Amino acid sequence: MATISRIGTSRYSPTRGRIVIHNGVLTTVATATDKVASLYDQARDALSNIDQNLAEAGTDKSCIVQVMVYVSDISNKEEFNRAWDEWVDRDNLPVRACLGVDLEADDLVELVATAAVDSP
Amino acid sequence: MATISRIGTSRYSPTRGRIVIHNGVLTTVATATDKVASLYDQARDALSNIDQNLAEAGTDKSCIVQVMVYVSDISNKEEFNRAWDEWVDRDNLPVRACLGVDLEADDLVELVATAAVDSP
Amino acid sequence: MATISRIGTSRYSPTRGRIVIHNGVLTTVATATDKVASLYDQARDALSNIDQNLAEAGTDKSCIVQVMVYVSDISNKEEFNRAWDEWVDRDNLPVRACLGVDLEADDLVELVATAAVDSP
Repeated sequence: MATISRIGTSRYSPTRGRIVIHNGVLTTVATATDKVASLYDQARDALSNIDQNLAEAGTDKSCIVQVMVYVSDISNKEEFNRAWDEWVDRDNLPVRACLGVDLEADDLVELVATAAVDSP
Repeated sequence: MATISRIGTSRYSPTRGRIVIHNGVLTTVATATDKVASLYDQARDALSNIDQNLAEAGTDKSCIVQVMVYVSDISNKEEFNRAWDEWVDRDNLPVRACLGVDLEADDLVELVATAAVDSP
Repeated sequence: MATISRIGTSRYSPTRGRIVIHNGVLTTVATATDKVASLYDQARDALSNIDQNLAEAGTDKSCIVQVMVYVSDISNKEEFNRAWDEWVDRDNLPVRACLGVDLEADDLVELVATAAVDSP
């Protein structure tokens, strides 16, 4: 069986992983660190946390396969899109879906991303 | 690192991918092209778009691994199920979850699918 | 193309798969078997069903990559977390996201998990 590599734990709980690598695919999750009131700002923050998680595992946004975007208010989706458009690697577009769901407390956005990575 | 192949952009935005292939797995997303008022009709339309995306990458529904189904009104789930039952390859059943979420504007359903494919 | 292995059908529908294995990755879905009123109890039940699905395919929770958790009432998330903390393999933490969505009828939680497995 291919080795599984696990890097770090969630910033919010010691019982959840932050980065898992298996079979050349990295899976990671992020919210904004700073729970400010603007979706645009939380989106930039969460996308930056995705970048950091990818960097920690030796990959970057050019290798992202998919980003699932969960926002607490779909009517503000354009705010997320603005942060996305500033952030995304236009030469390497991920598949993306953006869904309105209920998130915990002050989170306005949560991201789950998969990316290609060299397995350790 | 395994090559990533990206086919097309979203019909709704130049900053999102439509099909990404990595490590023998295709990931794709679809909504209905025609935003009619019936979930059954949007479901048929979105499932047909999944078929087209798979065909574009040289695979088909017999190779689907998973379909995540997001509907705007879970109380109409039976309408989606009807379209699903007419569409699905009964010899090759995907894992499926169907969730009620908030979707953009007139979308009643959004699909995210993964399928086996020969990497280019 | 890598072989796809499909094990079982959903307990709720003959047109959905329960376990699909492709490329060394198992994908499976579970809800609680007993639709009792407590999220904690449904969470334990659904997590146990994930364990059973993994066992059926020759793997176990130490090999889980990711668990997507969908709850019908995010304000009860702590109840899910309690069941999770009792269940999770602390030496092998999965990536996890927990989202509030609309689920069918009496379901309070639905889980979608991926895990490493030896392909048949």
